[in-house]
Amino acid sequence: MGRWEPDARGRLQQAAMELFVEHGYERTTTADIAARAGLSERTYFRHFPDKREVLFDATHALDTLVVDGIAAAPADAPPLDVLAAGLRAGAGMLDGLGDHARARTAVITSQGELRERELAKMSGLVTASAAALVERGVAEAPALLAAEAGVAAFRVAFERWVATPGGPPLPDVVDTVLAELRRVVAPA
Amino acid sequence: MGRWEPDARGRLQQAAMELFVEHGYERTTTADIAARAGLSERTYFRHFPDKREVLFDATHALDTLVVDGIAAAPADAPPLDVLAAGLRAGAGMLDGLGDHARARTAVITSQGELRERELAKMSGLVTASAAALVERGVAEAPALLAAEAGVAAFRVAFERWVATPGGPPLPDVVDTVLAELRRVVAPA
Repeated sequence: MGRWEPDARGRLQQAAMELFVEHGYERTTTADIAARAGLSERTYFRHFPDKREVLFDATHALDTLVVDGIAAAPADAPPLDVLAAGLRAGAGMLDGLGDHARARTAVITSQGELRERELAKMSGLVTASAAALVERGVAEAPALLAAEAGVAAFRVAFERWVATPGGPPLPDVVDTVLAELRRVVAPA
Repeated sequence: MGRWEPDARGRLQQAAMELFVEHGYERTTTADIAARAGLSERTYFRHFPDKREVLFDATHALDTLVVDGIAAAPADAPPLDVLAAGLRAGAGMLDGLGDHARARTAVITSQGELRERELAKMSGLVTASAAALVERGVAEAPALLAAEAGVAAFRVAFERWVATPGGPPLPDVVDTVLAELRRVVAPA
């Protein structure tokens, strides 16, 4: 066992963001990240399987918050309202990350393989949300559709929030975009 | 210039699908695909940039059909109805591919990097659809939300259609799922 490294994970994430912003994602290696964090590359790989994953740690936390929010919503609420409660909880966490979330988005947008991984993570959030809705007794088809549409709205809200620093907090933007979604997808 | 190869592109796609189904995606090389098609590996790379892309040729055709269908929809239709017309046109093409589309889906589902590429292509369809709606005078925010929700419904419909051979044709499944989406996302 290696010696205990206080908050090695957080230091690696911080170092990675700094280097990606300073030199770009392509020109940064996992060895560079470990060195900047004052840790060994081996420690890096104890925490993250590859160079990409250091940017995606918060998505586990996001999934958990959304799923817990879904489970805690009022019993009689319709599926999209239940999901909205979960998305709002996740949005609150991301809103607290502020500048970090913005810098991270700039890095991800700059690079094709990171954009693909981000889409895969969002697809994971759809699956987790749909499963949490089914857990509450929603049928599979409406659960999946609510999750797809709701998470798409969440992504649109996130992009809007990133593009407007100093604007409304993310949970409010999520509510706004969900209301827009309801209007656009109103029954014909 | 190489000599003219009649339908080299189609032969490479056919050969690739056969080999992916017979031996799996991982164990098939671009040289194997070219050999099965009776072509050189150089010819392969004149048509496709990597091993993945041979599976994604139809997505260009799909994007074009959806975008053209959006442009041709009645002038006064609401955004999601306009998009539905485009998605139905794309669905008609995929429905005609039948067993090929099913075999292709099985290959893509089996492999993480193919799933990520597929998500990226669907994200491209969202972007293209939203742009086509904006082109018709829809404002950017509702155009993006309609595109996100509509393409998500299209994906759900496609998965349902793949899972039920002998069931209703894909355009009908798309209509069914869009109606379900409208019910789930009804204004609160």
